[in-house]
Amino acid sequence: MEVIGLVEKMQQASENLRLSGKALALVPTMGFFHEGHLELMRVAKKHADIVVVSIFVNPTQFGPKEDLNTYPRDLEGDLFKAENVGVDLAFVPAVHDMYPDRFQTTVSVQKATKHLCGLSRPAHFDGVTTVVAKLFNIIKPHIAVFGQKDFQQLVVVTRMVQDLNMDVRIVGVPTVREPDGLAMSSRNSFLNPLERESALCLKKSLDLARNLVARGEFQASILIKGVKEMILSSPFTEIDYVNLCDPVSMENVQKVEGETLLALAVRVGKTRLIDNCLLSAKLLRRI
Amino acid sequence: MEVIGLVEKMQQASENLRLSGKALALVPTMGFFHEGHLELMRVAKKHADIVVVSIFVNPTQFGPKEDLNTYPRDLEGDLFKAENVGVDLAFVPAVHDMYPDRFQTTVSVQKATKHLCGLSRPAHFDGVTTVVAKLFNIIKPHIAVFGQKDFQQLVVVTRMVQDLNMDVRIVGVPTVREPDGLAMSSRNSFLNPLERESALCLKKSLDLARNLVARGEFQASILIKGVKEMILSSPFTEIDYVNLCDPVSMENVQKVEGETLLALAVRVGKTRLIDNCLLSAKLLRRI
Repeated sequence: MEVIGLVEKMQQASENLRLSGKALALVPTMGFFHEGHLELMRVAKKHADIVVVSIFVNPTQFGPKEDLNTYPRDLEGDLFKAENVGVDLAFVPAVHDMYPDRFQTTVSVQKATKHLCGLSRPAHFDGVTTVVAKLFNIIKPHIAVFGQKDFQQLVVVTRMVQDLNMDVRIVGVPTVREPDGLAMSSRNSFLNPLERESALCLKKSLDLARNLVARGEFQASILIKGVKEMILSSPFTEIDYVNLCDPVSMENVQKVEGETLLALAVRVGKTRLIDNCLLSAKLLRRI
Repeated sequence: MEVIGLVEKMQQASENLRLSGKALALVPTMGFFHEGHLELMRVAKKHADIVVVSIFVNPTQFGPKEDLNTYPRDLEGDLFKAENVGVDLAFVPAVHDMYPDRFQTTVSVQKATKHLCGLSRPAHFDGVTTVVAKLFNIIKPHIAVFGQKDFQQLVVVTRMVQDLNMDVRIVGVPTVREPDGLAMSSRNSFLNPLERESALCLKKSLDLARNLVARGEFQASILIKGVKEMILSSPFTEIDYVNLCDPVSMENVQKVEGETLLALAVRVGKTRLIDNCLLSAKLLRRI
């Protein structure tokens, strides 16, 4: 596996790969790889000749009071894991190479970012779309792979790609979970054992909602109430949001009709975790 | 010359041209070609194997009270002129293909847009950078050619390209002028004969400033006062701005030192015209 640090060198390498007829896949990450990341890389390998993984803890997508400085990092371990999965190229840029002194440009998706995580993290998605736009221009991938755990991020990036006519196909990959159901996340490493146990309420509350829908309950208010009660019955939890929304526009819905996204963000101790699932009235009615 | 209307078809054609090893140049325009546009195309031809001209009156760069609906158009004449100059491909997209229903993404250069034209046209440059980002993603040019008459636009687009790591080289082309000095502009067609005569004050005021600098006057306030007086002594004129600024940051300067941009926007009757020149204290001191 080749490791490239310089933006200019990466761009030249990608241009040459494209010109040689290779199909490129990008997996953009902030590193500290877990099985969820590795699954993204495996999916990428199925879709392309060359898999590039970017590892960059992007400062602009963290709020001023968020965990940029404590965000877990393990570059050596990451490179080992990526190589092991068969990644061809790791791009590991420096912050000052990505954001030089005069940097002042933002790519912003206007509407889909004004819901869910966008409310409690107002500049987060601008940071995400801007850095993803940069990575796409540097790495020139044919496809890019994102996890569905960050469902809103997947929607927002897809929206940006369509709106700006980026010639990149976005592939979403289902959330990878620990054996007990907790969605994999680099931030899980912040949880102490009691919080780790309590964090299971996220997945359990999604299951509860799915069961309620299967039994014919489609009212958003009732589903959300059930989910919130289950989460708050677990210790150390504080709810940021529990929402039922349209999975394209991210706008809240009153009822589950067709495909609906149930998305939640919960603080367990000091650690903010997110999870989600798609609910479908139609599909479950047929069962 | 081939003419392509569909975004998807243009993108595929460009990808194929790139893969075949051709160097592509883009001249983005709003049509109604004059000699200034044709000069951009000629410069593009010198830099590339294939010249693509886009003709698109971009609605998002016009303010609500501006001249979108009356902006002059002549597609047939434009295609004839472009073909005559040796353009290979004209891209003429429809508004709904560029901005479909759910469109909601903006590319925004934050600082360089807050001066000069950005003050009286607050959303203008966001419209420009967004549409140029789209055109770059669709047409995938190696170089793109812009006129220096729209100096701030050239600066803002260059900033966007650098900040977002777009793999496009921006080439600026000196302003083409009518024999009497008026900078060529599609909007000149709005001027009646008396206004057309009065509009010569723009170029004359730039010449005045150049002469003052040559004689050792470097104070911005004095230079600006002289320029304003000359413009206002011409009939039908109303000044939007006359500024001396840094040609990279667009920030106002107090004195001409090194290269300084003198930029002005003036209404002549109802028509808003812009013009500019670079002043240099060092260079002229040596003379």
